[in-house]
Amino acid sequence: MSKLLIVGTVAFDAIETPFGKTDKILGGAATYIGLSASQFDVDSAIVSVVGEDFPEEHLNLLTGNNINIDGLEIVKGGKTFFWSGKYHNDLNTRDTLDTQLNVLADFNPVVPAAYKDAEIVMLGNLHPLVQLSVLEQITSPKLVVLDTMNFWMDNAWDDLMKVISKVDVITINDEEARQLTGEHSLVRAARKIEKLGPKYVVIKKGEHGALLFHNDQIFFAPALPLEEVFDPTGAGDTFAGGFTGYIAKSNDISFENMKNAVIYGSTLASFCVEKFGTERMTGLNKNEINSRLKEFKDLTQFDIELTPTTAL
Amino acid sequence: MSKLLIVGTVAFDAIETPFGKTDKILGGAATYIGLSASQFDVDSAIVSVVGEDFPEEHLNLLTGNNINIDGLEIVKGGKTFFWSGKYHNDLNTRDTLDTQLNVLADFNPVVPAAYKDAEIVMLGNLHPLVQLSVLEQITSPKLVVLDTMNFWMDNAWDDLMKVISKVDVITINDEEARQLTGEHSLVRAARKIEKLGPKYVVIKKGEHGALLFHNDQIFFAPALPLEEVFDPTGAGDTFAGGFTGYIAKSNDISFENMKNAVIYGSTLASFCVEKFGTERMTGLNKNEINSRLKEFKDLTQFDIELTPTTAL
Repeated sequence: MSKLLIVGTVAFDAIETPFGKTDKILGGAATYIGLSASQFDVDSAIVSVVGEDFPEEHLNLLTGNNINIDGLEIVKGGKTFFWSGKYHNDLNTRDTLDTQLNVLADFNPVVPAAYKDAEIVMLGNLHPLVQLSVLEQITSPKLVVLDTMNFWMDNAWDDLMKVISKVDVITINDEEARQLTGEHSLVRAARKIEKLGPKYVVIKKGEHGALLFHNDQIFFAPALPLEEVFDPTGAGDTFAGGFTGYIAKSNDISFENMKNAVIYGSTLASFCVEKFGTERMTGLNKNEINSRLKEFKDLTQFDIELTPTTAL
Repeated sequence: MSKLLIVGTVAFDAIETPFGKTDKILGGAATYIGLSASQFDVDSAIVSVVGEDFPEEHLNLLTGNNINIDGLEIVKGGKTFFWSGKYHNDLNTRDTLDTQLNVLADFNPVVPAAYKDAEIVMLGNLHPLVQLSVLEQITSPKLVVLDTMNFWMDNAWDDLMKVISKVDVITINDEEARQLTGEHSLVRAARKIEKLGPKYVVIKKGEHGALLFHNDQIFFAPALPLEEVFDPTGAGDTFAGGFTGYIAKSNDISFENMKNAVIYGSTLASFCVEKFGTERMTGLNKNEINSRLKEFKDLTQFDIELTPTTAL
C-alpha cells in the first residue's frame, strides 16, 4: 500500500437542487476525495485550511474514516470557505449563488513531515500555486494526479500551465478539455493535453461517463444509469478519490490498473450523487460497493471472442 | 442463420456538413440497414419503393451485397424520396432543408413470398402504418425490431402506439425516449416504454453511446471515440442493421447475445460516420471490422474480479 496525500478545499456548502435544499453542510474537494479514498483503507492525509467555525464533528468524521488531518490548518478567528449553488432542472448545469473564500484567501499549505514521502499525490481543485507549493514539498512521488477547472484557465493560466507540466495524470471535464485545447474532438483534446505534460488524461463527461487516454490507448467507463440523480455536488472529487485510493491501495500505476481505478472512481461517484453532500459516502459499506461493481460489470462486459469463430 | 426482412426508405440524400457537401447520393434507412446487416452474410431482403429515376448502379450495389430487392417497388414515372439536410458545427444537430416524399406518399409495401417466413424483422423509420402493414404480412417472426422518430410522435401518435405494442425491441434516441414518456431519467423512460410493448429498449445517445434495457438489466456500449466525425447520416440505421444482422446470423435472441449485437451495431456505426453517406460502408472488409471490435474491447473491458481478493 502507498501513502496518499490530498490537497483541496474543506468547506461549507449550501446546495439547492430540484429535490430540496440544504443549510451549510460539510463540503469541499478534499473532503469528498478523502472520504472516497478511505473506502480502500489507505493511509491518507489531507492538507487544507478551515476556520474556527468548523465544527469538531466534521473533524471527527474525517479522522474517524482514518484520514490524517495534521495538515489541516485551523485558523483562529477565521471563517471556513463557503460555497453556495443552485442546480438547474437537468442537474447538468448550476449557478453559483455565493462564494466566500475566507481563510482560503491566505492559505499556505504545509505537508506534514510524515507525508512528505507520499507516493501518490492528489492535487484537488484549488489555485494552481497552492497545488504547486504542495507538490514541491513531496520528496519523490510515484504518481501525481491533478484536478482543476475552467475558473483557473480564466484567471491563472500561466500558473495552471506550470502545474499541468509537472503532473502524471489530469482529470478534467469535457467542456474544460475543449476550453484548454481549442479542440472539439475529445480524442484530439486529450492528445494536446498530453503534450502539456500529463501522460494520462481523464476526461469526465458527467452522466455520460469518463474517458482515460494514454498515448494511443483509450478506456471508457460509463456513469451508472440511475433512476434519479439527487445532488451532483462532489461527484468529480469522489471519482478522483476512488481513482487515487484504488491506485494507492493496489500500488500499481500501469495503464491496465488505471482502468480498474476509473471503474472504482465511477462506482463511488454513483453513490455520491444519491444524497445531499457527503451523506451517502459516510454510511457506505463494502458489500454495497461490491454489489455496485457487479452492476458495472453487467453494464459493460460482453463476450465476443476475436477468434475464427467470431460471428463475422 | 435466420432470414432478415427490412422495411424502410431507399432514398436520395443531399448532405452538408462542416467538412463539405454532396449532390444527390444514395441514402435511406433501409439502404443503411441492409448494407450494415450484409456484413454478416445473412439472407436479407428490403421492402421499399423508389422512382424510375433511381439508377441501376444503386440497385446493383444492393444486390451485389446479397440483399434481395424483390420487395423494392420501382414506380414507373415516379420520383424517389429525397431528403436534404445541413449539420451544425457540433454535428449533433441538423436542419432539414428539403423533404420530397414523392413515391413514398402512396407506398403500399408488399413482402415477397420468400420472406413472409422471415424470423427477424427490422421495421426501419417510416410511417407506423407502413410498418404495421409489413408486420401483418410476416407469418411468425421470432424478433421484431422497431426504429422510429419524433416526427411520428408529433404526427401519428395512435398508429405509432399500435406498432410499438406489437414489437419486441425498439430503438430510439434519448430525446425521443424522453418525449415518448415524459421522463427525463432514461432508466425511467425505458421502464415506461417496456410497458407499451417492447421487452427490449435500446436508447441511442449518439456520440455518448447506446443503452440496452430489459427488465432490471442494463447494458451499455459507448460510441468509439473518433478524432473526427465526418457525416452522422445513417449512423442510427447502421446501428440497427448491425444489431439485427448479428442476431439473424447468430440465431440467438437472448439478452446476453443482444449485448454482442449492440456492440456490433456500435462498431459498424463507427465506420458509417467516417465518410459521406454509404461510402464507408460499401468498401468495408472483415479485417477492418474485427480490428475495430478489438478497439471496442480495449475501450470497455476491465479485469476486476469480484472475489475475496477484490481490492476493497
